[in-house]
Amino acid sequence: MSETTKFLLSETDLPKDWYNVSPDLPSPLPPPLHPGTKQPIGPEDLAPIFPMEIIRQEVSQDRWVPIPVEVRDIYRLWRPTPLYRAHRLEAALDLPDRVRIFYKYEGVSPSGSHKPNTAVPQAFYNKLEGVKRIATETGAGQWGSSLAMACAFFGIDLKVYMVKISYAQKPYRRALMEAYGATCIPSPSMDTNAGRTILANDPDSTGSLGIAISEAVEDAATRDDTKYALGSVLNHVLMHQTVIGQEALKQLEMAEAWPDVVIGCAGGGSNFAGLVLPFIREKMAGKDIRIIAAEPAACPTLTRGTYAYDFGDTSMLTPLVKMHTLGHSFVPAGIHAGGLRYHGMAPLVSHLLEHNLIEAQAVKQRAAFEAAITFVRSEGILPAPEPTHAIRLTIDEAIRAKEAGESKTILFGLCGHGHFDLSAYDSYLSGSLQDYEHPQEAIDAALAELPVISA
Amino acid sequence: MSETTKFLLSETDLPKDWYNVSPDLPSPLPPPLHPGTKQPIGPEDLAPIFPMEIIRQEVSQDRWVPIPVEVRDIYRLWRPTPLYRAHRLEAALDLPDRVRIFYKYEGVSPSGSHKPNTAVPQAFYNKLEGVKRIATETGAGQWGSSLAMACAFFGIDLKVYMVKISYAQKPYRRALMEAYGATCIPSPSMDTNAGRTILANDPDSTGSLGIAISEAVEDAATRDDTKYALGSVLNHVLMHQTVIGQEALKQLEMAEAWPDVVIGCAGGGSNFAGLVLPFIREKMAGKDIRIIAAEPAACPTLTRGTYAYDFGDTSMLTPLVKMHTLGHSFVPAGIHAGGLRYHGMAPLVSHLLEHNLIEAQAVKQRAAFEAAITFVRSEGILPAPEPTHAIRLTIDEAIRAKEAGESKTILFGLCGHGHFDLSAYDSYLSGSLQDYEHPQEAIDAALAELPVISA
Repeated sequence: MSETTKFLLSETDLPKDWYNVSPDLPSPLPPPLHPGTKQPIGPEDLAPIFPMEIIRQEVSQDRWVPIPVEVRDIYRLWRPTPLYRAHRLEAALDLPDRVRIFYKYEGVSPSGSHKPNTAVPQAFYNKLEGVKRIATETGAGQWGSSLAMACAFFGIDLKVYMVKISYAQKPYRRALMEAYGATCIPSPSMDTNAGRTILANDPDSTGSLGIAISEAVEDAATRDDTKYALGSVLNHVLMHQTVIGQEALKQLEMAEAWPDVVIGCAGGGSNFAGLVLPFIREKMAGKDIRIIAAEPAACPTLTRGTYAYDFGDTSMLTPLVKMHTLGHSFVPAGIHAGGLRYHGMAPLVSHLLEHNLIEAQAVKQRAAFEAAITFVRSEGILPAPEPTHAIRLTIDEAIRAKEAGESKTILFGLCGHGHFDLSAYDSYLSGSLQDYEHPQEAIDAALAELPVISA
Repeated sequence: MSETTKFLLSETDLPKDWYNVSPDLPSPLPPPLHPGTKQPIGPEDLAPIFPMEIIRQEVSQDRWVPIPVEVRDIYRLWRPTPLYRAHRLEAALDLPDRVRIFYKYEGVSPSGSHKPNTAVPQAFYNKLEGVKRIATETGAGQWGSSLAMACAFFGIDLKVYMVKISYAQKPYRRALMEAYGATCIPSPSMDTNAGRTILANDPDSTGSLGIAISEAVEDAATRDDTKYALGSVLNHVLMHQTVIGQEALKQLEMAEAWPDVVIGCAGGGSNFAGLVLPFIREKMAGKDIRIIAAEPAACPTLTRGTYAYDFGDTSMLTPLVKMHTLGHSFVPAGIHAGGLRYHGMAPLVSHLLEHNLIEAQAVKQRAAFEAAITFVRSEGILPAPEPTHAIRLTIDEAIRAKEAGESKTILFGLCGHGHFDLSAYDSYLSGSLQDYEHPQEAIDAALAELPVISA
């Protein structure tokens, strides 16, 4: 072996700007619509819940948006993150020299995932505009704990509405948020009208991400000192994550490699976009590259959803955005990759698929964990359940290239470690993990509830 | 801010040798004694359970022992590890410029702690000598999972005897070992004479580290294809960990800083020694430096134990070593810092204390977690319960220097992240965490059972 394994950048190589793909798109993004009037919304519609700089970034046409020095100071606690040549995985797969695998690892952040890349700037802009308190929702807790850390850095109070069933099942995620100083309560709660209404109808409600979003948005909209923050889907969130792909580009240059294929897992879309958008820019400039989104077969937004205007939440309170969706009433099965259980997909990622700039493939969770076991026994790092989907596709691509006699360089995103997710591994290793695939009728039924938008 | 925060070395700066302090000691280490004859043991006594290269390293008088290229290839998956200037912690403590805090972070390893630094070479030397299978014990699972990873890299079968109560309480640590391919069973088990004997007398035994050691040693001693491996205490284990301190020395040079104080937590002693031995060498060469071992008040080996020959296990099967001990029958309270719950201390560390080359201070766990909360809310990284003891002493030293108007640079070891330990934080934050301090009679009673060695 003895070749370079880990490509590290110095602190001075930390990106100075986020990359905003909007001005480079082949056609403009369809505008978000007001949930009531179904007319395009303006900044004033978002001002009650977001700070102005976030709203500005959401619609910005600047290709490069400077990263504030205060944000870079925090990024450098864990950034630049390493890019690895997967020598040992290649050996485990018995790949020839012409088939190479690289991965970019975000699990070195304090919360163990890519989420702090956007949590930190969001907290910072709120701080700049005098916001004292933020409300957000969280499912399994990765976003909630990352924002809790960011709020601790800037002295902002945080209230996290955590889906009640997760709150009960994952007390340690709550403990992590509390260690950072956040307040975390089970949703639906008695603290909001939305929560009280749900509880009046169903006192035993176990909650949902849709309900928790409604509670957090109401909290922010009804308190002068409070704004709202979201961990994926929106343009500014995806843009903040582009530090991942920008670093990976530099690191592949150090490795004297160019990827034929880039693979990332896609739930709401921010991890995927953060890795691939800088490569999309190269692709639009003429570089030869395939870009693949790996999604779960149990929530196949890109591969089986439709491209249409839909609500971001199940309660139909958010603006309508044009995206690949399974319908806001679609309920994904309880797969372990909680971060991939979202009925929609970021409008930007959806737009790229419509323009054939990316591809998408669905992966079943048993096949994903099988790939994860091959990975952890060769590379040592235990992947979170979400990126196991990307690992599965990476291994499949590598084996195909080996068998076809082709040369191929593959880059995939390892967006987090699995130290919080050992129950999923326990379930897989004990043989009790199930595959889920929704019958077409279930998807058709949810799609039948899409809102009707006159063109 | 905008000053350098994270001092990173390149792969080429990874140490090429381990530092062996033995030839530099002011007097030789007292020899280990045979548990039956009470006479000094020789290599032949250890050959049934350890590979020859490990035995050679255990008694080596070479100051520098080359790190094999195969081991360095794996080290570089996570090494060199970062050294941080704790700018944000300093700000949170309102320290003047003349008081500076640095920390060396080992939590970036795949298993989240310093343990792989010795697991990898131990597995490698076993592989070299044709060993097909290793047996070991584990308490909470940090050592078991690190050795499981190392064995996966070299294709060695691993059987881990895990203390039964931990096996039941921490199914996810078991799942991590199994993800790496190891077999993990609760101890006492029916697989060994030692286990069967215990179970015959007490079918409900919840096990202990002492029992698990007995089972693993018996397993290795009675099978030709199997050796035993230990995760702390012994000289070779401490030596493998010196990559930590060697890197820290280089990184402080980059930072143009010299530490007035170095602080590490000490359980069996390998993490502490790994950080401080390279600084001990500088101290013996005349450099001005204080070196402090942070231990739990609930298991105060160095501060309240005695320096005497004692058994390494509670079952009195291991060789006798001269060390600071609370007596092999001492049962520490159930503090969350499982890695610090050992009745003895590495003979090397004990010897350094006898020669006044180090100091020791005991810390209560509530005070330790209080410091950890200050740390996580400023630096972002959630510490494992063990290094919270070092953080407590670091903060105390810093505040004292600030109040006394002194200049002071402090380095401490952050040997692991706390993502596996959120139940401990939950317990602290909910107010249910208790302090434990053993009454002197309990310690005296255990010390009365020390073996009598004729001089």
